[in-house]
Order: sequence, then C-alpha cells, then structure tokens
Amino acid sequence: VKVAGLPYRSVWRDGDRVGIIDQTRLPYEFHSLRLARVDEVAHAIRSMQVRGAPLIGAVAAHGFALAMRDNPSDRALEATAELLLHTRPTAVNLRWAIDRLTARLRPLASASRAAAAGEEAAAIADEDVAINLGIGRHGLQLIRTVAKTKGKVNILTHCNAGWLATVDYGTALAPIYLAHDEGLPVHVWVEETRPRNQGLLTTWELGSHGVPCTLITDNAGGHLMQHGKVDLVLVGADRVTAAADVCNKIGTYLKALAAKDSGVPFYAAVPTPTIDWTIRDALKEIPIEERSADEVLFVNGIDDTGSVARVRIGTENLAAANPAFDVTPARLITGIITDRGIARATRAGLANLYKQAA
Amino acid sequence: VKVAGLPYRSVWRDGDRVGIIDQTRLPYEFHSLRLARVDEVAHAIRSMQVRGAPLIGAVAAHGFALAMRDNPSDRALEATAELLLHTRPTAVNLRWAIDRLTARLRPLASASRAAAAGEEAAAIADEDVAINLGIGRHGLQLIRTVAKTKGKVNILTHCNAGWLATVDYGTALAPIYLAHDEGLPVHVWVEETRPRNQGLLTTWELGSHGVPCTLITDNAGGHLMQHGKVDLVLVGADRVTAAADVCNKIGTYLKALAAKDSGVPFYAAVPTPTIDWTIRDALKEIPIEERSADEVLFVNGIDDTGSVARVRIGTENLAAANPAFDVTPARLITGIITDRGIARATRAGLANLYKQAA
Repeated sequence: VKVAGLPYRSVWRDGDRVGIIDQTRLPYEFHSLRLARVDEVAHAIRSMQVRGAPLIGAVAAHGFALAMRDNPSDRALEATAELLLHTRPTAVNLRWAIDRLTARLRPLASASRAAAAGEEAAAIADEDVAINLGIGRHGLQLIRTVAKTKGKVNILTHCNAGWLATVDYGTALAPIYLAHDEGLPVHVWVEETRPRNQGLLTTWELGSHGVPCTLITDNAGGHLMQHGKVDLVLVGADRVTAAADVCNKIGTYLKALAAKDSGVPFYAAVPTPTIDWTIRDALKEIPIEERSADEVLFVNGIDDTGSVARVRIGTENLAAANPAFDVTPARLITGIITDRGIARATRAGLANLYKQAA
Repeated sequence: VKVAGLPYRSVWRDGDRVGIIDQTRLPYEFHSLRLARVDEVAHAIRSMQVRGAPLIGAVAAHGFALAMRDNPSDRALEATAELLLHTRPTAVNLRWAIDRLTARLRPLASASRAAAAGEEAAAIADEDVAINLGIGRHGLQLIRTVAKTKGKVNILTHCNAGWLATVDYGTALAPIYLAHDEGLPVHVWVEETRPRNQGLLTTWELGSHGVPCTLITDNAGGHLMQHGKVDLVLVGADRVTAAADVCNKIGTYLKALAAKDSGVPFYAAVPTPTIDWTIRDALKEIPIEERSADEVLFVNGIDDTGSVARVRIGTENLAAANPAFDVTPARLITGIITDRGIARATRAGLANLYKQAA
C-alpha cells in the first residue's frame, strides 16, 4: 500500500543489505533499518522489529540470502536454517520459507547458492504480495455483500494483519483497503492487542490510508458484537491446520467465541503458506510462544514532552505471564479467506479448495 | 483486610469529613483523602478515586450525610440524591444506597436529618462488611472442594472486586482471602483489565496479603482456560438482574464465554444490594457507561526516574471508544455467590435463595 514517504514494501533489498521498517518504534517514530548480516536479521525477527507471519517468512528468506553471500558452505546453510527457525516458534510461514530455501539450495554447488537464495527471497516476497491481493479480492466480496444490505460496514479486527505484517497489502486488511478504495463505507474497530499494542500499527496503517477506524480495548469487542455494532470480524493467522483451526495473536479465540455467540461472521485471512497440513491437534501440537513478562509490565507511549517513553505499569516483583498466541477452533469460524478463494472452516472445506485449485 | 499502615476500611468517617483512599494513584502511591463536602464526594466517585459497586454505594451514603449536615432542607435532600445518582450510571448499589437514604430522611424533620444520614451511612458500611464476609464464607466452600481434588487452586479474576472495591474484604476476593488464611494453596490469575488496569489494584491487594498471583493481559484468560490452567473464575458485579444476568466490568462476558467453552466453573460474587429486581432485559435496560476516550489513549505507570508518569499510546487525533461494562448472560454462569448462599444462575435459583432467606 502506497503511503507518502514510505517504501512501497515492508521488506526490500537495498544493495547488499536488507531494508526493514523498525516496527517497535511505530506508530510514534518511523525508522527504517538496513540489515547487513543474518544475525541482525535473526535479531530483528526475535525482537519484533519485524512481525506478522508472512513478513517474518519473507524477512527470514532475505536473511538466508545474506548468510549465503557471506558463507555458502553446507555447514553454514544448515546453521542458517537453525538460527532463523528458532527466532519465533509459532508462525509456520517462517518454517515454510526456510524449508523452501534449504530445498532449493542444498542440491546446488556452494558458488551458486548466494544468487539462488537472493532469487528465492525475491520470489517469496513477490508471491506474498500476489497472495495478499488475492485474499483482498476474495474478502472484498464479503464486504460488498454486507454493504448491500447494511450500507456502512463495521469490521472488527485484532492485532495487525495489514501491510506491515506482510510484504504488502496485508491479509485481514487487504479486503478493507480494496473496499475503501472502491468507495464502500467501511469503518474498522481496532483492538489495541495487549501486551504489544499492535492495534496501534493497524490504526496507523488505516489512518494513513484514510480508512475510518476507532481504537478499542481488547475487552470491548464482545460487548460491541452483543449490541449489533460489528458486521464482520476479520483477523489474520500465524498457523492454520488442515482442520481449519486457527492459531493467531492471543485474544483472537475470545473474539471468535463472542462472534459465534452473537451470530457475527468471523473470518480468518490466510495465505497458503500459513496452512500447516502436518498438524493433527492444534491445541497440543502448535508451540505457543511465551514471551517476556516485561512486555506485560511495561508500556510504550509518548510522554508529556512529546518523546517516546516507557512506563512500568506493574509494581516491583510482580509476576506476569505472557503467552503470545492462542488457538481458535474451526467450529467458531465462519470461513477461511485464502488467495485461492473462501473455504468453509472445515477439513473438507480447505481440502476442496486446494484440490480444485491444484 | 488489614494491611500494615493502611486504614482498616476503604471509606471511613474522620471527624466532620469522609476518608477515602485515592485509588487513581494506586498501586504506585498510597494516598488517603479527606472529603469535606458532598460535591467532593461526587467528584471522587465520578473520577474513580473510589470505584467498585459496593464502595460507590457506601461512599455516596457518606456524602449524603455531609450534604445533610450542611443543608438538611427538602430541596437539598432531593438535589443531593440527584447529584449523587448521576455520578456513575451502571452500578445499581449507588441507586440502592441513595434510595435507602432518601426513604429514611424524607419523613424526618430537617433538624434530625444530619444525624439520621450519618447513622444510615455507617449502617450501610457495616452491612457491606458483613455481606462480604458472608460471600467469603460461601465462596470458600467452592475453593475447598476444588482443593480436595486438585491440590493447588488456580482462580482467574477480572478487574478488582477486592477490599478496595468494597468497604472491606471484597466480593470475588473475599473467598480467596479466607481460603489463603486457612492455608489452602490458591494462586490467582489477575487480568490487567484495560483501560484502567484495575487488575493492578488486585495484584497490589493480593500481594499485600501474601496471596500468590500472576498478572496477565485480558487477552490471555481464554488460552489459559483452554489449557486447563484455570480451575475457577470468580468475578464481581455492578448490577445483576432477577434472571441472573450479570453486568460487570467490560471484558467479563468474554471470560464467561471461554469458561463455558472449556467447562471451567464461572461464578459472580454478588452482594444483595447489587441485585436489581426491576430489570427485565439486561442488554437493553442496563445503562452502560461510556467513559472518556482518554482512558484508552493514555496509560499510567512509573517512568525510569521512578516517578508516576502518564504516556499517550495513541497517535494524535485517534478516535477511541470506551464502554466500561458488559452483560454476561446467565446461561454462561455457573452460579451466583451471595451473602445468603450460592444460587444457580437462573431466575428460579435466585428467587429460591431469597425466598428461603426472607
């Protein structure tokens, strides 16, 4: 999505370095970084300078290319895969990207690996953009349908599944951008998404693009649905199983329960690389990242001098737990919006879509 | 609950003034205030220096007594009732206390009103303490039962329904204090409860009393329940209908949905004055307070110099909505813990309890 003064994509190759936007400083400060080595890329993923399942995959692929340029040996190839794989455990796009790189590079002679890795990283990024446009076009149909009967369309979203979370366009936000661009009257309820407040990335994105939106606490979504103030819930995903269980940012499950309870359609926007066909039991098998307690105990914002500041909300020695994702069972989900179309959230629904499209 | 250096109760009469703890400064600073006039009391309720349905009722009663001391005329009586009633719309305890004062005072000669109001306020406060001890004793049975089969008891709570929210002991926390005091191994998951983070009042209370607790975001409770890490959910209430629908702090509904989905017992602790027998349709008739957007957009904490500071998390001109309460339908609730016993969360359950006890 084009925003004045910003690069067109959330990750790009800049000569011999990889460009990213430092998302830990958004929405308060816009800073881009140039990463020169794979360990800087690993740090960027771990520290959430880049985040969002699709973007993590694309950035990791670019990091792989940097590593192969520096050392294309078999040993370095395996070490790079290990290093990158262990930066974040939950999103499957990371593993998918690394597997794709290693499958392409292992058979090659060392001398060819750097160039091939660069090509593969570029292809992954380009494909992500195409995938998200596909999701946008399919999801747009849902918004058009609501707009026909209700006029204004109120969409609730959790976390950030916009262009910042992908290479471009976003997943859950792609249909919203397309709807807004064709003049449909959309309004987005954006949940702040504690503890890291990625909802503020979403309000920043939407605001930059002129899409009307309102920030709410994570507690408020159920109440709004009970009172008919939400027409559609659109969220992203970090890993989706063949049975259509959706692992996404912590708190997604609560909104799916509320949507089901109030009869509000709940859709997850899922790029094909986010589907993990190997998982049988989502609740038992998907590793849920437990992040630092400090993410709960400290909050970033702007102080009264206008500077970025961090305050500690917890008292000294307060214990905090911080699971970063949860699993929404397929039974609570209306449908899965993929780049190949919209599937019912069932094993058969996903299988049919991928059979037809194959 | 006795905490070293703190007054025994959350509201008290101090000569010709009313003492309260300024809860907007907790958990960072402990300050008590002495309120000299009813308009100061109204401000304290409105600005949430005091909060929690039972405490609001008791503080309003004390404010009424101050007003009658200053001017016991019929006109002042009605104006005082109006002033106090409009400080907060959702908790019914406020209306209950005001109705009780006006019913007692209207028939009296002006000269007798100040003394009678003071007596009535003291009686309301004393009764609140007795009610909460009753809730504590009934709720303790539930914790004992879980402890027998599971050993350690993991309880999840939302917002603050402790001694700070009442005159003493608390509602949802009363059973926890009693359980801890008799040596049962309880651990409390405390939700931070955005936007005002009353969960930090709860961790402060529990920590002061030595009860093990862990702070979590409001997003995390569903995930913990899915994974068997919660044995019991205990929350307070701001208004409960005859049909046992529970209006409580925003986000309570989401936790009740999750508890139902995972088969975790969900109880609301409800003093008798919190039951509003007049409401027929909780979702339509209970007024849900919409508070300032700034409560969502700004966060209090401690900055790196150790001072209390406020940061703005939202960007300039960001819209925010801030409904402060939601309604949990009775069908999601296991039971209502009252001072008269534990009722099934049905119209018949509550009616039977109050018939038997009447």
